[in-house]
Amino acid sequence: MAVYTEVSDEALRAFLADYPLGELVAFRGIAEGVENSNFALKTTQGEYILTLYEKRVDPGDLPYFLGLMQHLAGQGLACPQPVPAHDGQALRQLAGRPGAICTFLPGVWPRRVRPQHCAPLGDALAQLHAAGQDFAGRRPNALGPQGWAPLLQACRAEGDTVQPGLIAELDAELAAILAAWPAAGSLPQGQIHADLFPDNVFFLDDAAGQPRVSGVIDFYFACTDLLAYDVAVCLNAWCFESDHSFNVTKARALLAAYQARRPLSQAERAALPVLCRGAALRFLLTRLYDWTSTPAGALVTRKDPLEYLRKLRFFARAEGPGALGC
Amino acid sequence: MAVYTEVSDEALRAFLADYPLGELVAFRGIAEGVENSNFALKTTQGEYILTLYEKRVDPGDLPYFLGLMQHLAGQGLACPQPVPAHDGQALRQLAGRPGAICTFLPGVWPRRVRPQHCAPLGDALAQLHAAGQDFAGRRPNALGPQGWAPLLQACRAEGDTVQPGLIAELDAELAAILAAWPAAGSLPQGQIHADLFPDNVFFLDDAAGQPRVSGVIDFYFACTDLLAYDVAVCLNAWCFESDHSFNVTKARALLAAYQARRPLSQAERAALPVLCRGAALRFLLTRLYDWTSTPAGALVTRKDPLEYLRKLRFFARAEGPGALGC
Repeated sequence: MAVYTEVSDEALRAFLADYPLGELVAFRGIAEGVENSNFALKTTQGEYILTLYEKRVDPGDLPYFLGLMQHLAGQGLACPQPVPAHDGQALRQLAGRPGAICTFLPGVWPRRVRPQHCAPLGDALAQLHAAGQDFAGRRPNALGPQGWAPLLQACRAEGDTVQPGLIAELDAELAAILAAWPAAGSLPQGQIHADLFPDNVFFLDDAAGQPRVSGVIDFYFACTDLLAYDVAVCLNAWCFESDHSFNVTKARALLAAYQARRPLSQAERAALPVLCRGAALRFLLTRLYDWTSTPAGALVTRKDPLEYLRKLRFFARAEGPGALGC
Repeated sequence: MAVYTEVSDEALRAFLADYPLGELVAFRGIAEGVENSNFALKTTQGEYILTLYEKRVDPGDLPYFLGLMQHLAGQGLACPQPVPAHDGQALRQLAGRPGAICTFLPGVWPRRVRPQHCAPLGDALAQLHAAGQDFAGRRPNALGPQGWAPLLQACRAEGDTVQPGLIAELDAELAAILAAWPAAGSLPQGQIHADLFPDNVFFLDDAAGQPRVSGVIDFYFACTDLLAYDVAVCLNAWCFESDHSFNVTKARALLAAYQARRPLSQAERAALPVLCRGAALRFLLTRLYDWTSTPAGALVTRKDPLEYLRKLRFFARAEGPGALGC
C-alpha cells in the first residue's frame, strides 16, 4: 500500500502540461507496490499510471528500467510503456522526485494462484526473455549472489531473534549455494525481471474462461543476469501452496510453457535446483533484513522471512531438476 | 491508504456475476480512505468503486448511507450512486464483509485548497442539504455533542502526554460548548455529510480554468443533524492555512456560495461560532483518541490532534459570525 509522496493539483497540472495527454480527468493513489508511489491517472486521452520513485530506487537505474520497458513493449510484451513528454523524455521530475507516466494495463493479479495461471506465466516469462535479447542496456543484479553475504551480515546481529539458529543455517546455506553456483558465462544471460511475483502479473479470462496474461508490471528489480534464475524466482513465487507444499503440477505447467518458447539447455536444467535455492535465499534475506530493521506494526507490511526458509530447505533437499517438474 | 481485506479473483468474479456490469477488466486497490477497503473496478460496462466495509463501520448504518447516496444522486448531486445487483440489492457480501459497488466519479481532490475551491464547495454543500430534505432515513450523529464527553473520557488517561494541561483545557471547552449549544429544534436539521474534508470533494476545471465540483464522496459519517454544523465542519476543514491562520476570504467565498442556494437564518448565523468550536472539538477528540490508542509508526497514519486545538482556540475567541466571514 503505497503513496509516500503527495502531489498538489497545481503541480500535477503543470507536470501534465508537458505531455501530449490532454486534460486531467481523475487522479487516485493506488494501494499496490511497496517501493514507489503509484497513482492511477485518467486524462481525456486515456488511462495511465504515474509513478514517483522513492528513495529505495537508485535514480541512476531509472534510464535502464524505463528503457527496458520501452524496448519490451516495442517487442510486443504487454508491459507498461513509458510515455515521453513533449521533449521526448519519459523520465521527469514531480514533487521533488523522479517520476514517469506509463500506459495502463488491464487485468487482475491472482490473489490465489491456480494451476491454470502457471502456463500463461511461463509463456510470458519466455516472451520477456526473448524480447530482451537485443536490448543494449546492462544492469548488474544488486541482489544476486555477490549481494547475499553483505545482506546476511546486516542481519547477523538480530537474525536469531526471528528463529534460534537461523544465522548459522543461512551461513551454511550461503556457502553451499555459492560453491554450486554456475560459473560466469556458463549459462545464457539476458534481461530478467527478477521479481515476477503474482502481484506483478495481470490476467484476464479468454472467451473459454481460461486466464491469459494481460500485463507484466514493476520492472524495478530488473537486471542483466542468468535467464534461468528468473525461472527459479517464479518457481519460488508461484508454485508453493499456502500449506508450504511444492505443487509440482504448477511447476510443470510453468516450465513446459516456458520451454515451448525457449527450451532450457541441459546445463540450465542441471542448475535449476541451486538457482531455486539461491532465489529462496535472496527473498529470505531481504525479508529478514526488513523484518529486523522495521518496527512491528510499521507503515510497510512486513513479509514473513520464514516462509522462504521453508522454501530454501525444500530446494536444498530437491534431488535434481526432475523433483522440480523439469 | 487503505486495503484491509484481500479479495480473491474467483470470489470477485462470483460476486460480479450477480451484477449487470459485464466482464471484469481491471481491479486495483485504492490508497485513499481510511476506514474501509476501496478498489477501482473496471468492467466492460464502465468504471466503478468497490467498497468493503471494515469493522469501524456499523453494518446497521449501511442501509442509511447507501440509501442516502442513492437519493442524493437521484436528486442530481454528483455523488457515488450504489449499483444494485440483479436482485435489486446494492448492499451485498464479499470476502466475509459487507460490500457495495458505486459509480466512479471523475475529478481530483485538492491537496492544497485555493480560495477558488471554496465557492464551488459551498454551493455543493447547499445542494447536498437541499437534496437531502425529502430523504426519509434518519441517523443520529454518533460523533455529535452527546458523543464528546465519552470520547474525552477515553482520552483522559493519556491525553496530557500529547500536551501538558490538554485534558483540563478540553474539559473547560466541552462545558462551555455544551452550555452554548443550540437547543434541540431551534435550528434547521437535515441530512449532513459531517466529514466534508478536501479529500472527499473532487474538482475538475471548467473551460475558463475555474474549479468545479465533480464529486462528493465518502458518506460514511453522514447523519441527521443541524445543517449549519456541516457548514462549521467545512470552515474547519477548508479555511485554515498551513501556518494555522484562518483565511476569511475562503470562508466568505464558502458562505456566500452556500447562502446563494440556502440562506442561513439569523439563529444559524448567531450559532456559527459555537458550531465551529464544537466541530473543532469533535475532530480534535477523534484524532486524540487515535493518537493515544495507535502505536507510533502504525499502519494508519495518525493525524495531529493539536492542529485542531489551534482551531478550537481560534473559534473560542471569535467575536461573532462576522469574524468567520458570515
